[in-house]
Amino acid sequence: MDMQTSFLDRLFESGLLIDTGVDGLYGRSGQFEDVITAFERLIDTFGGSDGAEAMRFPPGMNRALFEKSGYMKSFPQLAGTVHSFCGSELDHMSLLECMEVGEDWTKDQQATDIVLTPAACYPLYPTVAKRGNLPKTGGLFDLQSYCFRHEPSKDPARQQLFRMREYVCMGTEQHVTDFRQRWMDRGVEMMKQLGLDVTIDVANDPFFGRAGKMMVNNQRDQNLKFELLIPITSVAKPTACMSFNYHQDSFGLKWGLNLEDGRVAHTACVGFGLERIALALFHHHGLDVKEWPASVRKTLWG
Amino acid sequence: MDMQTSFLDRLFESGLLIDTGVDGLYGRSGQFEDVITAFERLIDTFGGSDGAEAMRFPPGMNRALFEKSGYMKSFPQLAGTVHSFCGSELDHMSLLECMEVGEDWTKDQQATDIVLTPAACYPLYPTVAKRGNLPKTGGLFDLQSYCFRHEPSKDPARQQLFRMREYVCMGTEQHVTDFRQRWMDRGVEMMKQLGLDVTIDVANDPFFGRAGKMMVNNQRDQNLKFELLIPITSVAKPTACMSFNYHQDSFGLKWGLNLEDGRVAHTACVGFGLERIALALFHHHGLDVKEWPASVRKTLWG
Repeated sequence: MDMQTSFLDRLFESGLLIDTGVDGLYGRSGQFEDVITAFERLIDTFGGSDGAEAMRFPPGMNRALFEKSGYMKSFPQLAGTVHSFCGSELDHMSLLECMEVGEDWTKDQQATDIVLTPAACYPLYPTVAKRGNLPKTGGLFDLQSYCFRHEPSKDPARQQLFRMREYVCMGTEQHVTDFRQRWMDRGVEMMKQLGLDVTIDVANDPFFGRAGKMMVNNQRDQNLKFELLIPITSVAKPTACMSFNYHQDSFGLKWGLNLEDGRVAHTACVGFGLERIALALFHHHGLDVKEWPASVRKTLWG
Repeated sequence: MDMQTSFLDRLFESGLLIDTGVDGLYGRSGQFEDVITAFERLIDTFGGSDGAEAMRFPPGMNRALFEKSGYMKSFPQLAGTVHSFCGSELDHMSLLECMEVGEDWTKDQQATDIVLTPAACYPLYPTVAKRGNLPKTGGLFDLQSYCFRHEPSKDPARQQLFRMREYVCMGTEQHVTDFRQRWMDRGVEMMKQLGLDVTIDVANDPFFGRAGKMMVNNQRDQNLKFELLIPITSVAKPTACMSFNYHQDSFGLKWGLNLEDGRVAHTACVGFGLERIALALFHHHGLDVKEWPASVRKTLWG
């Protein structure tokens, strides 16, 4: 925890991150953004020839589709629903009185049709399902969005609003597991070019409660999730900067994603935690980008 | 309304916008994003030599600072508060039962410390105030973020989650009103280079309720807000694609922004509605970017 707080303080002092008064909610400097932009170009270099279809969804998604996704079953503690004032002028006056005297003015806010996007690929599956059966070559999509997870923390690598870049592959089991393996190899190579030491390990999602333990075990036993780990504020507990997920046919079944011949599609996704990768770079090579190793600067800025 | 729906349908059919099932909440194609990226480069060309400090805030901001901003007084109907599940495993079970039977499961969600950012510059003022008095040259900042406004609509130019690029200037009255005038001139010139017909007119914010009428009149009488308007789905009611706002010393007083000599700073901001400008381009020059006039393509892609 001390290592995390001290790194966060150094990031604030350097101006790379901007304190907003809420743990895990930070502004970014132009320099921080330049690193993310450059790293996304590097992703394009590795993935560009695959012919993925780019889509960009906003940081909120359709609540009905979010409900159908089952997210509230597995990760209720992380979700963020968006609520609005829907009252009359009289209601507005009592709301303002509430604020005036420091009472809870949010209790009458009503849920809108929007929830914050929990992972960049959530809005994709129902979008692709509406198109009908996948083409013979399957589906490959390139996504990026701000995502929300309600987990306030002093660890700069655990932010409540952060960006995730993703590739999602749909097709046969062989097709999508090959895709996942290809990106594991690429991820290792990318980080090597950036001078970052990585390990890849089997992993699990943070399923809620005691019932979640069974899902954790199931996910690990079947090697459904791998993470690319880089030490940022702890060597003992390195930070997941990429994840590689094989969903079997569960998303195909849920959303009605079918192959050209009508069989249920398998899906896999690989995700980059963009802020985490930028933070890994700043932690390993220093807060002054001009002082980074020439090879790293060349990889990022040519 | 028919013109709006028919333009929206054409955008869906072409794939430029992606239907999510919620009015005003859309995905964007890679092509749509390319236009926004190119337009932002054009903004950089016009504003780059001014030496603005770039900051990028996430799509959510500190709720306490949002409360202090007075937004709920003026625009309660547009705000979005972020709520989360904070209960036990037992609470989780009843939440899931609620979902199961189709009852309202959102009523026990609790407000977090985060609200959705209503305009790109809201998180800026308290950030700058913490630095102490402004330097002699004043302050100039370059911002961009996704913003939320709860106003579901079939008009593609009125989205609930959209991006706003902003420059914010802090200094003396003369300094910030000069800044505002300079960007009005630049805005007209930029849109001329893009082959878009524009008008600039005095405007007002959508203040809530009958009490809001007074604020509307006050804002218009004092010429505090101008908009650059481009016809998109209606010639009679063209769409505001840029706005130019002079806040007098109201933000300086509220946030404690002071000049080098301790006097209260005046502030002004200019905002670009990035989706609206992209939509204006698609509406005027057609949905196929390859068919746009050569001069427009040259302005955007060199």
